[in-house]
Amino acid sequence: MASELPLRVAYRLPEWVRDVAPPPGTLVPSDEERMRLTIRLAEENVRRRTGGPFGAAVFRRSDGALVAVGVNRVETERCSLLHGEVMAIALAERALGAFTLDEPPIPPHELVTSCEPCAMCLGAAFWSGVRRIVCGAQREDAMALGFDEGPVSEDSYAYLAARGIEVVRGVLREEAAAVLRLYRDLGGGIYNP
Amino acid sequence: MASELPLRVAYRLPEWVRDVAPPPGTLVPSDEERMRLTIRLAEENVRRRTGGPFGAAVFRRSDGALVAVGVNRVETERCSLLHGEVMAIALAERALGAFTLDEPPIPPHELVTSCEPCAMCLGAAFWSGVRRIVCGAQREDAMALGFDEGPVSEDSYAYLAARGIEVVRGVLREEAAAVLRLYRDLGGGIYNP
Repeated sequence: MASELPLRVAYRLPEWVRDVAPPPGTLVPSDEERMRLTIRLAEENVRRRTGGPFGAAVFRRSDGALVAVGVNRVETERCSLLHGEVMAIALAERALGAFTLDEPPIPPHELVTSCEPCAMCLGAAFWSGVRRIVCGAQREDAMALGFDEGPVSEDSYAYLAARGIEVVRGVLREEAAAVLRLYRDLGGGIYNP
Repeated sequence: MASELPLRVAYRLPEWVRDVAPPPGTLVPSDEERMRLTIRLAEENVRRRTGGPFGAAVFRRSDGALVAVGVNRVETERCSLLHGEVMAIALAERALGAFTLDEPPIPPHELVTSCEPCAMCLGAAFWSGVRRIVCGAQREDAMALGFDEGPVSEDSYAYLAARGIEVVRGVLREEAAAVLRLYRDLGGGIYNP
């Protein structure tokens, strides 16, 4: 064991992300277009073997300007926390220099994710201050592959709704779920099953 | 807005942590002693104004060897994800070079936290693979200060129990809750209220 307690961590997205996603500030006006971007990120992540089959992105609420994206990096960066949503939120907060995505002068933001958030990511989205969450594949699609989504229930969504957070589910669900199956078919690992 | 998407994040604990916590590998045999360490970390974090009133640590399950510690760094590192538990899990996985705290050759581990985990941290603990979670202050103690713990219920704990994760609550609750009140009395910010 090391002689001193560890104090620092650092994580990164693969460089190809900048080839697949448009530059920050690009307006992506519809839920479908935003979802298509996160699905594309998830699929590239699988094909390039740089992580699990999940992508996410943070957009400015008013006009859909792209702020940051994320893909699952659990196995590649060796950290169980690095789901696509966590990466997108962390990078959005870094880009904005703020620990909240909704407090003046920071305008409201929303999170788009290629799969319904697990318990950790739902909580992470809640704490980030995003005012809206848009989901593609559904919990059942991830569970069908053996991923355990943790303690998330309809009560969890009701809790967020009661605090003014809108959640939209099932946008391009089939395309998003297809990436999960692609991952399985290419032999991707289901960690912490 | 920057011209390129952000790809990297890096976070750190304050240096004083190494003065307060013993070196990694130190055996801390009882729940009370482990909890006392996380409470001490939380209190120092408040007094030195380096973060919120929460501390956590990861220990090897078999003998209580300390692996890593964490304190809340949300405001100081400008990231809503950096609760004490998240920092402790991230640093423990870094120390072990693994994305799970329970898969051979990695032995089972446990998480000790000065306050019951919020929704994000309960999910983070679940994904980390820890086999046991020990909590000090209770959800109500944090809520009394205005912190919102998110969608966590008795069902959440039952979900973890059904997957073999033991949760022990209320260890040194009074001492742990006193740090929360200290934070309030010193004028600490309640973010995302």
